[in-house]
Amino acid sequence: MNIDTLIFARWIIPVVPDQQVLEGHALAIHNGNILELLPAEQARAKYQPTRVHELPDHALIPGLINAHTHASMSLMRGLADDLPLMNWLNEHIWPAEGRWVNEEFIADGTRLAVAEMLRGGTTCFNDMYFFPDVTGKVSAAAGMRAVVGLIVIDFPSAWASDPDEYLRRGLEVHDQFRNHTLISTAFAPHAPYTVSDQPFERIRVLADELEIPIHMHVHETRDEISQGVSRYGNRPIERLRQLGLLSPALTAVHMTQLETAEIELFAESGASVVHCPESNLKLASGFCPVEKLHRAGINIAIGTDGAASNNDLDMFSEMRTAALLAKGVADDAGAIPAHAALRMATLNGAMALGIGDRTGSLEPGKAADITAVNLGSLETQPLYQPISQLVYATGRDKVTQVWVAGKQVVHDGRLTNLDQGEIIQRAEEWRERISEFK
Amino acid sequence: MNIDTLIFARWIIPVVPDQQVLEGHALAIHNGNILELLPAEQARAKYQPTRVHELPDHALIPGLINAHTHASMSLMRGLADDLPLMNWLNEHIWPAEGRWVNEEFIADGTRLAVAEMLRGGTTCFNDMYFFPDVTGKVSAAAGMRAVVGLIVIDFPSAWASDPDEYLRRGLEVHDQFRNHTLISTAFAPHAPYTVSDQPFERIRVLADELEIPIHMHVHETRDEISQGVSRYGNRPIERLRQLGLLSPALTAVHMTQLETAEIELFAESGASVVHCPESNLKLASGFCPVEKLHRAGINIAIGTDGAASNNDLDMFSEMRTAALLAKGVADDAGAIPAHAALRMATLNGAMALGIGDRTGSLEPGKAADITAVNLGSLETQPLYQPISQLVYATGRDKVTQVWVAGKQVVHDGRLTNLDQGEIIQRAEEWRERISEFK
Repeated sequence: MNIDTLIFARWIIPVVPDQQVLEGHALAIHNGNILELLPAEQARAKYQPTRVHELPDHALIPGLINAHTHASMSLMRGLADDLPLMNWLNEHIWPAEGRWVNEEFIADGTRLAVAEMLRGGTTCFNDMYFFPDVTGKVSAAAGMRAVVGLIVIDFPSAWASDPDEYLRRGLEVHDQFRNHTLISTAFAPHAPYTVSDQPFERIRVLADELEIPIHMHVHETRDEISQGVSRYGNRPIERLRQLGLLSPALTAVHMTQLETAEIELFAESGASVVHCPESNLKLASGFCPVEKLHRAGINIAIGTDGAASNNDLDMFSEMRTAALLAKGVADDAGAIPAHAALRMATLNGAMALGIGDRTGSLEPGKAADITAVNLGSLETQPLYQPISQLVYATGRDKVTQVWVAGKQVVHDGRLTNLDQGEIIQRAEEWRERISEFK
Repeated sequence: MNIDTLIFARWIIPVVPDQQVLEGHALAIHNGNILELLPAEQARAKYQPTRVHELPDHALIPGLINAHTHASMSLMRGLADDLPLMNWLNEHIWPAEGRWVNEEFIADGTRLAVAEMLRGGTTCFNDMYFFPDVTGKVSAAAGMRAVVGLIVIDFPSAWASDPDEYLRRGLEVHDQFRNHTLISTAFAPHAPYTVSDQPFERIRVLADELEIPIHMHVHETRDEISQGVSRYGNRPIERLRQLGLLSPALTAVHMTQLETAEIELFAESGASVVHCPESNLKLASGFCPVEKLHRAGINIAIGTDGAASNNDLDMFSEMRTAALLAKGVADDAGAIPAHAALRMATLNGAMALGIGDRTGSLEPGKAADITAVNLGSLETQPLYQPISQLVYATGRDKVTQVWVAGKQVVHDGRLTNLDQGEIIQRAEEWRERISEFK
């Protein structure tokens, strides 16, 4: 049978079923989708592929899914570090955004972020920022899967002046990418403390109608809780419940401040959590009780947050930090074992973003979103357990090949669709402009 | 003037003075030592070097110092993960050590560890394990600086049968490396819960006589404290104080369980702390209150611990985790800023190990222990602050050149003194043996 691509790899880790590690298998791709995983010998007999890849030192895993970022903020990477959150926002990030954010900034920043993510084995990201149309276009052109957030916030920006306009422009973006192979949308109300009841009510109705997720910062800091209590008389999660927003459509990011009853409520609702451990640490936002959420049966994904608060978009590092930090916070070295962390960084992300039927695991019928990691180097020897090595001993620098929807976007560590030199040049130009203004 | 080597780099970050970033400078090396840091133009006029390196995208930093590891445990990397500490030790690590630790294991394990560390920009490590003579010989042959621990523990091992023999063999190792350029020694009593009063008393006297440090696990877990209280009637730090061991010679590793009075006592004593954030997280040992120790004026270094509990020997990752985790634990985004983390991973380590006059910063007269990091790639753009980028956005994969005592041990990312293929082959042979026995 003639097919597009056949990949032979030392190990294939499909994520479904849990903990499975196939040795000496091949993965067949046709028309952008995964056709079959089968023993190498059978694959050689059955398929006549146009392209063959032999990866004798590699593990194939589902492309990692960065379930929360602000891609174009990569242009503010390291602009202001080691500062308390409100100082960081008020004195540095918000003024820089007010001065610089426009279509050109979003295009250059997204391109830098997409290049970094693809090269590091991330095949899909969930974005929340201004000009989501530009983010979507840049990602699609680079061959990267993305869920672009239809941002809504009470305050004006270069993108829209009030919640009505945010929603109107957001719906236009939704229409623009309807049925797109790589780009889908989610409502992205910024946070309970920056969005009023009325736009929340419209979002709930529209999200039901359009059947798209709602992506929001929730319970990120203690201040957010106390502000919510003094302004609305209750904690933000309770307010969201009253607004009808606790549902399987909700993807709540950060969630560092949680009472037991809130965890139970959340678990019952079927909503997802996106854990951003490095951003939470760097901004001293608090510790997400990941193991408790996991035991409550909540779907937990992983995100890097923006590069301004991380300062990278490295999902291997984020996955490792998530696995390590969960143990410290739970006071239990058995918390979030390696395979659970890998699932959080792949399938759980896809499920949270409403694209679990298309990506997040290496299963026949899903898109061929695949990352090949070289486990043959010094740093991963000896190798007792491939999944452990992937989570605890591997870095994104070991990623050599990446496919999205069957198209190879990273080949031997090099980006196939993007001009790295030009991206670096543009970032340097932005640095000069932004530094002069500071 | 004729000299050995002249390195031109975009940035030079000497660590002393604090926060200094020299642009467009050169570093002159002669006879293994740093001769001078000076503007590039002056350097071209003044020196006729045998070797010249032009590193237009790089930052030069002092070689990183891994202030606590068990190098040869790299052969047990990933052998047993996601397990509670006592289960991990009793069921996996101790049985494997009992079965496998011999001179060959130490030599192969140390060589793997040294290769990983050098390639990742670490130029010196402080080791605690059996057969320190072998560890020292392997490190010296590879051209890596090391402080080998003269281990003492109440229990027998392949290295010695009782504390007297541990001490006797340790003193032989000390003699063996006396006046060695690269290898020095420290007493390494394992921990308060595994060493009796009598050997501690001898170590105190001997360390005074020989003027070498004392390197020990201290207050790693809650269990250690409660065991100490029930066995000796006081917490381990108080017992160490009574034994006269709280002094500038002491390097106490982990220190996750600390009362305020203990921090004050420690600060007054002049002892150092080695913080191992990733090991503490992975084994759920507790959180070292790094910011409190820092504010109390305690010298804090950073270590990876062994690869069996990390699972890498990556000091860039460890430095970043230390900077991030300190903020979360202190509930203060300003805790341990980037430059403080870099100092912890370099000069503070050298000071803790009693070699602060020889290494840890790029100052004239010190050994030329230098790491060059490429900051020109996608992942570090835009670049507002080199030190921030080094700590928060760079990985060890960006290390391209490394010198120890003026000799280049990594050239364009490749090890110059070690056969990587052979090291990997030996690790694989150990994996087969150890896996079969399990």
